[in-house]
Amino acid sequence: MPHSPEPLPAPRLGEPYLLTPGPLTTAFSTKEAMLRDWGSWDADFRAMTKSVCDQLVALAGDTTGAFVCVPMQGSGSFSVEAMLGTFVPRDGKALVLANGAYGLRAAETMRYLGREYTLIDKGDYMPPRGDEVAAALDDDPAITHVVAIHCETSSGILNPVAEISEAVYSRGRKLLIDSMSAFGALPLDVNEIRYEAMVSSANKCIEGVPGFGFVIARRSELEAAKGNSHSLSLDVHAQWAYMEKTGQWRFTPPTHVVAAFLEALRLHAAEGGVAGRGARYTRNRDVMVEGMRGLGFETLLKDRWLSPIIVTFFCPADPAFVFSDFYEKMKQKGFIIYPGKLTVVESFRIGCIGRMDEHVMRRVVQAAMEALAEMGVASAAPPEAAIAERAKLAA
Amino acid sequence: MPHSPEPLPAPRLGEPYLLTPGPLTTAFSTKEAMLRDWGSWDADFRAMTKSVCDQLVALAGDTTGAFVCVPMQGSGSFSVEAMLGTFVPRDGKALVLANGAYGLRAAETMRYLGREYTLIDKGDYMPPRGDEVAAALDDDPAITHVVAIHCETSSGILNPVAEISEAVYSRGRKLLIDSMSAFGALPLDVNEIRYEAMVSSANKCIEGVPGFGFVIARRSELEAAKGNSHSLSLDVHAQWAYMEKTGQWRFTPPTHVVAAFLEALRLHAAEGGVAGRGARYTRNRDVMVEGMRGLGFETLLKDRWLSPIIVTFFCPADPAFVFSDFYEKMKQKGFIIYPGKLTVVESFRIGCIGRMDEHVMRRVVQAAMEALAEMGVASAAPPEAAIAERAKLAA
Ligand SMILES: Cc1ncc(COP(=O)(O)O)c(C=O)c1O
Ligand SMILES: Cc1ncc(COP(=O)(O)O)c(C=O)c1O
Repeated sequence: MPHSPEPLPAPRLGEPYLLTPGPLTTAFSTKEAMLRDWGSWDADFRAMTKSVCDQLVALAGDTTGAFVCVPMQGSGSFSVEAMLGTFVPRDGKALVLANGAYGLRAAETMRYLGREYTLIDKGDYMPPRGDEVAAALDDDPAITHVVAIHCETSSGILNPVAEISEAVYSRGRKLLIDSMSAFGALPLDVNEIRYEAMVSSANKCIEGVPGFGFVIARRSELEAAKGNSHSLSLDVHAQWAYMEKTGQWRFTPPTHVVAAFLEALRLHAAEGGVAGRGARYTRNRDVMVEGMRGLGFETLLKDRWLSPIIVTFFCPADPAFVFSDFYEKMKQKGFIIYPGKLTVVESFRIGCIGRMDEHVMRRVVQAAMEALAEMGVASAAPPEAAIAERAKLAA
Repeated sequence: MPHSPEPLPAPRLGEPYLLTPGPLTTAFSTKEAMLRDWGSWDADFRAMTKSVCDQLVALAGDTTGAFVCVPMQGSGSFSVEAMLGTFVPRDGKALVLANGAYGLRAAETMRYLGREYTLIDKGDYMPPRGDEVAAALDDDPAITHVVAIHCETSSGILNPVAEISEAVYSRGRKLLIDSMSAFGALPLDVNEIRYEAMVSSANKCIEGVPGFGFVIARRSELEAAKGNSHSLSLDVHAQWAYMEKTGQWRFTPPTHVVAAFLEALRLHAAEGGVAGRGARYTRNRDVMVEGMRGLGFETLLKDRWLSPIIVTFFCPADPAFVFSDFYEKMKQKGFIIYPGKLTVVESFRIGCIGRMDEHVMRRVVQAAMEALAEMGVASAAPPEAAIAERAKLAA
């Protein structure tokens, strides 16, 4: 990959970049694909749905037909709930691995479902490791499924899903993965990491617009999941069975969002698929993190755990730094950033995903520098407490 | 309303009209509103959400703050399930009034939820009447809620919700309405018809694109519904409580679909709101039904029960008539029609909703005439069985 490729086109005048974990900045052609209406029953739209599913299964590395893709209306959380409700049987028990908001949300979902679960809660970001998963499974033979978050977007940490998968299958249990913010940019190849099902959504690393998620699941596992679901709308088995029979979505699909997603998939392939997309995001992150560190900001995570998806920075200790002011100034300069989710110290996040490149990331750093100066922040160094917090995590 | 107002602009070249009950043909400006990206956390988007909710509550006629609007990601069925799961308490019991696919789906949803329900199933289209609802409520004091379908889109019948509401409240029970395909074109004013909650979705009579639904509910009833929901994603109370606090959707909203909906609401208001929209659809129906009858087609329903939303026609008895050929010919001529859902005789449906007017409806009739001729159908008259079927329903 060349060091400074041709810049990607900018959004239209006056439109800020979204440095957020999705909805994110999409290509103009992706949005343009929404400029017509489709009949959801019609053959043209059925072919679009089939193309989306075929391409997604291919991105997961399956060439044998052992895996299927089931799109699901709603936001990503709807797909997570659909996956849990469909694949964890009513007499099953899940071990949920949490190190942030999305892990905790998976646990909360299990509570709503009224199904048994237990939680390993690692706090704001400490990663769940293979050996502790193995120990928990040895301790509790009732556990049938483990639920892991691939990139925990609330801190940006890249969780060690490969070692978790090994621990799970070495104990004869089954793995379900929330790869919402990672799939399409980080490999999750069924030939390399074993799992029964994973979810992601249209508006993350494939760079579509929001409106549906999808479950990629082992066919045999899905076939066995009939009757498990607690919800008609979120029944992945019923959605799949109907689609197999008719080529249609069970209920009205977000037709325009699907059309946009097809164009997003075309751009994804043109960029070199998962490897190409991952390389651009990695470079986005590297350029942005280097620049922000140059301004004195510090990341929550040591380099080893940084994902190329989103990065958490500590808020400066300097009392002149007020996040809401910083946010507004960044927005005026054309960049929408994201608040942090740490419970212990103040933080904010900058996303690396979406239709933007290192040229944009340099301008983000420049904007941050200007914003600090305008606010009269002398030093971007974080408070002592933040440094102490970070010391807990191994390099 | 003038007899032949200025024709509405046509869709772009090569794009067929969708004579379907949604997704439907939308205005170009509605689709154009999707040509930018929004940050879902940002104040600009929060203001858009608030405007959508305020306008929808106003369409329901509430000026006192007694009702609130809660948008919900996913298709309309997701909102129906969300309403049932949130408002029928776990120890409640619903009486579902079914005369077609959507009534039966509401019952199936109750089955998934594992909540008690009973069903009045009137078959393919016979309307549930106030007196039989009253009798059923008198018979079963355990029933707490009645679920009614406003326009049962599977036949196009306009159900008598006003008399149903009277029966329900005269017996001290509560009414929940699925007004998916009617709201925005047919009045459902809280000052005229009493109910606790109703649902509709973005891609019906407001003429937005698909991607979310919404619940309009009595605030006090919603406040009392905390903890009822079987689903995290579909918990209307939790969605509302979070929105009240933050102005944001709990989970990623379909930002582009929301932007399109705002433009659709602007066009709806410009057309004269519910009255204006309803008048155009009524004229669409009248022109189309008159023309189709002129060709020899017959409607399933007598005039009194015809909605201005969608109309079911019997397929001609003539063996030269093959629906799939008729469909393809109509599509080539620029019109996507819809298959029927009757169980007893063959039928098809033509929608009257979406961004089109009587000029278009005349061309629809013309296209149907040409298609019949091309297929060599001598008479569009329905089979005896169809006429016998229709005779069951009072004029
Ligand atoms: C890892 C992860 N899981 C779940 C979700 C929830 O997705 P949504 O906001 O679309 O419901 C997100 C959203 O960012 C996420 O990053
Ligand atoms: C009356 C009624 N209820 C429910 C639905 C289901 O809506 P969706 O297809 O968006 O899930 C429809 C769809 O046409 C409908 O007309």
